[in-house]
Amino acid sequence: MRVLRVAIAGFGGVGRATASLLLSRRERYRRLHGTDVRLVAVCGSSAGLFDAEGLEADRLDLLEAGLSGADFINASGADILIEAGPSDFRTGAPGLAYIRSALSSGRDAIVISKGALVHSGRELRALAENADAFLKISGAAAAALPTIDLLDHSLLGCTVLKLEGILNATTNYLLDAMTVRGIGFEEALREAQAGGFAEADPRNDTEGWDTACKLLILADFGLGADLTMDDVAVEGIRSVTEKRIEAWRAEGVVARLVGSLTRTDGGFHASVGIRTYPLADPFAHVRGKNKAIRITTDAMGETVAIAAGAEPLATAAAALKDLEHILAARRG
Amino acid sequence: MRVLRVAIAGFGGVGRATASLLLSRRERYRRLHGTDVRLVAVCGSSAGLFDAEGLEADRLDLLEAGLSGADFINASGADILIEAGPSDFRTGAPGLAYIRSALSSGRDAIVISKGALVHSGRELRALAENADAFLKISGAAAAALPTIDLLDHSLLGCTVLKLEGILNATTNYLLDAMTVRGIGFEEALREAQAGGFAEADPRNDTEGWDTACKLLILADFGLGADLTMDDVAVEGIRSVTEKRIEAWRAEGVVARLVGSLTRTDGGFHASVGIRTYPLADPFAHVRGKNKAIRITTDAMGETVAIAAGAEPLATAAAALKDLEHILAARRG
Repeated sequence: MRVLRVAIAGFGGVGRATASLLLSRRERYRRLHGTDVRLVAVCGSSAGLFDAEGLEADRLDLLEAGLSGADFINASGADILIEAGPSDFRTGAPGLAYIRSALSSGRDAIVISKGALVHSGRELRALAENADAFLKISGAAAAALPTIDLLDHSLLGCTVLKLEGILNATTNYLLDAMTVRGIGFEEALREAQAGGFAEADPRNDTEGWDTACKLLILADFGLGADLTMDDVAVEGIRSVTEKRIEAWRAEGVVARLVGSLTRTDGGFHASVGIRTYPLADPFAHVRGKNKAIRITTDAMGETVAIAAGAEPLATAAAALKDLEHILAARRG
Repeated sequence: MRVLRVAIAGFGGVGRATASLLLSRRERYRRLHGTDVRLVAVCGSSAGLFDAEGLEADRLDLLEAGLSGADFINASGADILIEAGPSDFRTGAPGLAYIRSALSSGRDAIVISKGALVHSGRELRALAENADAFLKISGAAAAALPTIDLLDHSLLGCTVLKLEGILNATTNYLLDAMTVRGIGFEEALREAQAGGFAEADPRNDTEGWDTACKLLILADFGLGADLTMDDVAVEGIRSVTEKRIEAWRAEGVVARLVGSLTRTDGGFHASVGIRTYPLADPFAHVRGKNKAIRITTDAMGETVAIAAGAEPLATAAAALKDLEHILAARRG
C-alpha cells in the first residue's frame, strides 16, 4: 500500500484537532484511497515530535523541546505539510517559512493560517506551480464554509460578477450581540473572550483585517485576481454606535460585517465594511459565530452558502478535505 | 490539440441552452483545458444533426428528421454524451437508452434528466464503473444548487447525519404564492403554468415525485445508499388547506415542501413532505423558484446552500460544470 507522510506545523487548538481527526480517519484513507497515511511529525513554535513510522494519538501530549522549524519538518520526510500555526499578514511569519520550504522541495502544502497566503500569495502560487505541488487553502478561506470550493468546483465555467461574505465569526457574534441583545461592544467582547472565540487583542477581527485577509485569499487564489491589502478599503465594527443600531432597527434591517468583491473592467474592487440586509435576505439570519458567502455569476445566478460548525473541529475537517482531494488527485 | 466530441440527446429548452453555452465556451476549453471541444451531434425525439467537424450555433435551428436514438448518437463518435431529454422515473425512458448505450461503450455521460437515474441508478453506476467512464449528474440533482458537489467535494471526509432540501422550484413557488400572497392552489398553478415553470400536468411536481426523485439521486449517488422510490414516504402540497395556512401564520412559521434523509443504523430514512420553519431559519427565506439544501455532518456541523438561477441557463451551466470536471480529470 502506498504510504503518505504528513507533517503538521503549528500545534495549537487547530493543529491538535487536525492531528486527532487525521489519526481517526486512517482506516478511511486506506479503504477509499488505498493509502497508508502516517503523521510523521508535528511541531509548535519551540517543540515537536517525529516518528518515521507514524505518531499515535497518545504521544501527542508531550512534545520534545527543540524539534521545530522548517528544517525539522523537511528532515521528517513528510510528503505533505499541513500548516496550522498563527501567521501575521504583515510579515507572513511564522507560517511562511514552513510553506515556502515545503513547496520549494516539491511537497504539497495544506495551509490553514491566512497570513502567509496574504503576504506572499503570489510567490507561493508560483512555487507550487513550478514544483507541480498542490497548495490547498480551504482551512484559511473560511474553513467549513465552502468558498474556494464554490469558485473552483461548483461554479466552474461561470464568470463571477460579485462575491460577498460574512467571513469572520467573532465580529458576527459581536454585532449580533450588540444589535439583537442590545449589549455594548465592550461587554459583548468580554463575553466572546470568555467563550474563547475572541482574541485577547481582538483588533485583527474587530477592525476588519481578518475579513480582509479572507477576502484577499478568495480574490487571489479563487478568482485569479492579484490584489494586496493596499487594494482593500477596510472598515471594522468599532464605528457601530447605539444610534446606528437604533436606526437599523427602525428601518427593519440587520447589519453584518461583510467582505465584498465586485468585478470591474480590469479586475475586482474589494472592500470590507458594514452592510445592512432586509429580513428577507438569508444574510440577515446568519447568526452568532456562523459564516456565509454569496456569489453571483453570469450563468448560475446567485449561490449562497451558510456554515455553522464547531471550532476547531470544523477547520480541521476543512484541511483534511483538502488532504483527500490531494489523495484522490495523486492516486494515478 | 486534443479533440473531445460531445453529443447532446434531448433537444428541448435545456438541451438547446446547453448546446449554446457549450459553443460559447469553446475558447475557454482550449485555453484552460487544452481541448478542442466539438459538438458533433444533437437530437430530439425524432430529428437531429450530425457533423464530425462540429456543429455551429446557426445550424441548430433546423434538425433533420430521422436522426435520433441511441444508435445515431453512438455512430456520431462522441466521446461524451449529455443527456438532456425528459425521462420518466417509472420506466427510465427515453433517457435510459441513451445513457446505457453511452456507458456500455465506454463513453462518459453527463445526465440532466432524473428518470433514468432513479429507475436504473444502480445499473448505470455499475456500467460506468466497469467501463471506467464518468457518470456525472449535477444537472439532475437540483442543477445550479450545489448538492452532489457538497457531498462529494466540499464535505469530503465527513459523515452525513442528515440532509434536507427544498428541491423543487415549482412547488416552492406555489407554496409561496399560497401562503404569502394568499391565493389559492388553482390560481397559483395557472400563474406558474403561464410563466412556463409548471407543466401542463403538474402532478409530478405537486405530488412530490420530482422532489423524491432528486432525493433518491442524492441518497444513491451522493451517499452510497441503495434506496428506491418504494423506500420514500412521499407527500405533496395538495393537502395544504386554507386552514393549515392560517395556523402556520398564527404560529409564525413558513411551510416548505422538503425532501429529507436521516442516517439510521443501517442506512438512511427518506421522506418528502411539508415541513415548517421559524423565520430565523434560512429555509424560511428561500423564496419563489429558488432551491436550498441543508446538510448536517459530524465534523463540519451544518452547511446550507441556496441557489437562485434562471432556467434553463443555470441547468445548462451545471451540466457544463460536470463537463469541465471530466476535462480536468481526463487531462492526464
